[in-house]
Amino acid sequence: MEPVLYYSPGAASLVVHWLLLELGAPHRLHLVDTSTGAQKAPDYLALNPNGVVPTLVLDGVPRFEAAALLMTLADRDPQHRFAPAIDDPQRAEYQQWMFHLANAVQPLFRQWWYPNEPAGEALAETVRANVAPRIEACWERLDAQLAKQGPYLLGDRLTAADFYLAMLMRWSRGMPRPATQWPHLAAFAQMMRARPMFAELYAREGLTEWANAPAAQTA
Amino acid sequence: MEPVLYYSPGAASLVVHWLLLELGAPHRLHLVDTSTGAQKAPDYLALNPNGVVPTLVLDGVPRFEAAALLMTLADRDPQHRFAPAIDDPQRAEYQQWMFHLANAVQPLFRQWWYPNEPAGEALAETVRANVAPRIEACWERLDAQLAKQGPYLLGDRLTAADFYLAMLMRWSRGMPRPATQWPHLAAFAQMMRARPMFAELYAREGLTEWANAPAAQTA
Ligand SMILES: N[C@@H](CCC(=O)N[C@@H](CS)C(=O)NCC(=O)O)C(=O)O
Ligand SMILES: N[C@@H](CCC(=O)N[C@@H](CS)C(=O)NCC(=O)O)C(=O)O
Repeated sequence: MEPVLYYSPGAASLVVHWLLLELGAPHRLHLVDTSTGAQKAPDYLALNPNGVVPTLVLDGVPRFEAAALLMTLADRDPQHRFAPAIDDPQRAEYQQWMFHLANAVQPLFRQWWYPNEPAGEALAETVRANVAPRIEACWERLDAQLAKQGPYLLGDRLTAADFYLAMLMRWSRGMPRPATQWPHLAAFAQMMRARPMFAELYAREGLTEWANAPAAQTA
Repeated sequence: MEPVLYYSPGAASLVVHWLLLELGAPHRLHLVDTSTGAQKAPDYLALNPNGVVPTLVLDGVPRFEAAALLMTLADRDPQHRFAPAIDDPQRAEYQQWMFHLANAVQPLFRQWWYPNEPAGEALAETVRANVAPRIEACWERLDAQLAKQGPYLLGDRLTAADFYLAMLMRWSRGMPRPATQWPHLAAFAQMMRARPMFAELYAREGLTEWANAPAAQTA
């Protein structure tokens, strides 16, 4: 049974879609039109009571939480080495970064994208002004981490956590100080966006913003 | 080398402390006095640049993120069965709940405990009024999950995710509608608080609030 990914272009589902492509895992896509609130429709809530994307139907069971899905997909396909094995000394570090992104970084973006939630629509701009420097502080620390032990979060080793970080960085593209203003993060973005499956992902989700500059044409 | 837990009573470190006790794992405690801002002092930031508790020094390396620490501790001690093994069919479900709590629930408590952060000190009460119903919606869904497949998040099977849920429920104790107002969550709390290591944890952290009623004295 092929996994089915319920997604919306550019949303938190993006990183799950990207990993499926990197793994070469057969899957089907099912668009959830968040512009019409399809994520709150009864048929979708029956799959995912939280009313958000992504949902991945895996072995016939609907599962949610983008970061959990990443870990599960990476663990199930050890050949691709996107996750240190459970007895690998770097497993603890991998889990630390997965949860750091899930708990300390992604939730700040919820405030950036849904600035009405913390204090009502009238205070949306105040919330955005308050959350921007907090997101910047995350980039500051993550850039320091890559400076100390890059080019990936686990040093030389590319893991699912890097795809997650790249997605979150992408979300900052319209902010006063996007993540790519930090030098090590900028180099990291360049590298992640150069992956063939990134182009494939963009084609499939119909995305164009936040891509590497095209290589110079030769004659 | 014994792990060292940097903690503050009742904070996010509580669940790591609790699991260490449940595992019978030797460890040392190091109090971080958050009332004087010790979590932002240079010596602590050198361990954990995020300036929050917990930090667990594990095999000599400081690690952060409470939920990641739970997963790491549980995975390293398979005999206690606090985590489905990597090839267990329930592993995906376990990871889903760990990330659900880390990404969708705990961050709302950040707004409850630090209501000045989203929109400034003057709007703290507005933020609290907005976040309370969002936390209640989490209890509603989690209660429905336990109703469907309880008494633990993974049905019959107690995992690290349950300790995490219990800690978050504890944080709601002073809210307009604490988690224990939902019946399945109330029964769950009762069960978790009846664990001998819960009493031990309370004694070690000097906590008293949110305990089970003492058993009636017999003459
Ligand atoms: N904890 C979820 C959060 C997902 C989430 O917030 N998704 C957003 C899009 S990025 C969404 O579906 N928003 C629609 C809504 O909240 O109604 C996860 O990481 O999977
Ligand atoms: N992502 C962290 C968050 C921990 C956290 O927010 N800890 C709070 C106490 S519950 C803290 O240290 N607050 C002090 C501060 O933010 O200055 C984790 O889950 O370990």
